[in-house]
Amino acid sequence: MTRFARVEHEGRATWLRVDDGAVLKSAPWISEEVTGTADPACLPRLPPATPSKLVCVGRNYRAHAQELGNEVPKEPLLFFKPPSSLLAPGGTLLLPPESERVEHEGELTIVIGRRGRRILRERALDHVFGYTIACDVTARDLQKKDGQWTRAKGFDGFCPLGPEIVTGIDPAALGVRVRVGGSLRQDGNTRDMVFDVAALVAYVSNAMTLEPGDLILTGTPEGVGPLVAGDQVEVEIDGLGALAFDVARESVAG
Amino acid sequence: MTRFARVEHEGRATWLRVDDGAVLKSAPWISEEVTGTADPACLPRLPPATPSKLVCVGRNYRAHAQELGNEVPKEPLLFFKPPSSLLAPGGTLLLPPESERVEHEGELTIVIGRRGRRILRERALDHVFGYTIACDVTARDLQKKDGQWTRAKGFDGFCPLGPEIVTGIDPAALGVRVRVGGSLRQDGNTRDMVFDVAALVAYVSNAMTLEPGDLILTGTPEGVGPLVAGDQVEVEIDGLGALAFDVARESVAG
Repeated sequence: MTRFARVEHEGRATWLRVDDGAVLKSAPWISEEVTGTADPACLPRLPPATPSKLVCVGRNYRAHAQELGNEVPKEPLLFFKPPSSLLAPGGTLLLPPESERVEHEGELTIVIGRRGRRILRERALDHVFGYTIACDVTARDLQKKDGQWTRAKGFDGFCPLGPEIVTGIDPAALGVRVRVGGSLRQDGNTRDMVFDVAALVAYVSNAMTLEPGDLILTGTPEGVGPLVAGDQVEVEIDGLGALAFDVARESVAG
Repeated sequence: MTRFARVEHEGRATWLRVDDGAVLKSAPWISEEVTGTADPACLPRLPPATPSKLVCVGRNYRAHAQELGNEVPKEPLLFFKPPSSLLAPGGTLLLPPESERVEHEGELTIVIGRRGRRILRERALDHVFGYTIACDVTARDLQKKDGQWTRAKGFDGFCPLGPEIVTGIDPAALGVRVRVGGSLRQDGNTRDMVFDVAALVAYVSNAMTLEPGDLILTGTPEGVGPLVAGDQVEVEIDGLGALAFDVARESVAG
């Protein structure tokens, strides 16, 4: 089990191995060549990925599909979030004036380490570098109104990510908890996913080449609910730590 | 009016100014610093963009919305294609076995030159670097079946792009024609767009920061139809040249 963070170090985005503070020359899925050391506790955190795409999976927990009145899909239901939606751990999510109901969805997130297309399910885990935590922030009203979920899931800051990437962990049965202001809102377990990590990697890669650093957000358990300005959110996953962020209202000029 | 191409030159992806063969040090929206010369006619073309996101607009021509039995949207209908879907001009589109009906959608494509969020409509054109041509290839059966258009629009090769980026052109009334095997299938004009270039840039940027190099595909006129193996496709837009690609069947092992 190794933990990696992306930090701001000497004015640049830099990858760190958290346990020994090694400063890496590149993203850890490329190489772990060390160029120095630094103290991760003292450096501003960045989202631990620079993906070419963020593929997300909808309704991948039975109880969550049901709480929104949806059927459980027969095949994974895919959508994208844009890279511009990434928010650093500890950052502030701004609620846009376009929505009256922005909700939290805590999710186990796969970090791809090796390029592939039409990856076989039996080989899928060989393409996974590690795991991290995301909150698939969703404007529930726009999701219904727009039909396609592009805007509802795609505002700047709608993808808090981190705090770290952890390698060498088994994703099969991890507790996923979301707390808002300390109160428990979501309390699920990845063993209840409809499609597991290997199935998702295989399915997504049948359509599109997965690149190193790409992310797959694996869906959220039941208990989603609204966020309001002033909320402090924490998404915790067993073995992956806790991703924290604050919530404020976006002020738009004019 | 200046034309830029991205080519393979001395083993690397390189930007060229087409008219004088100047080899550029970076993407042209960053700088036009010249490092040498080369003959664009002799070099393999690459898709003329490396976008962090491809934002697409559905049903942006009244007659096309109607031909598929859809209403004209009151606000732009947005979706994403992934960067992995880009295909070089002159490339070969592979029809995946998952779909029985893959269709062409020729589209004027905006190339963003300057970063921005919540860009005012009056300032929107200042953020546009130039224009190019895309084919928003669509698996029509999966589009209906999946609900979200991620897979239907997102297979590898489903976004032929190019051949060049052209700056200093007025996008308001350009003919858009798609020929398959020489026969005219789509014959529209950008003046029939429901939401024009400035409106689209402003609307998209209200949700998400537009980065230099990002693309907005502005929708397709009526006349969409199926592609089959062996087809030769040409998407032509006034002032932007013609984007050509071939069609073949993807062969999948197993």
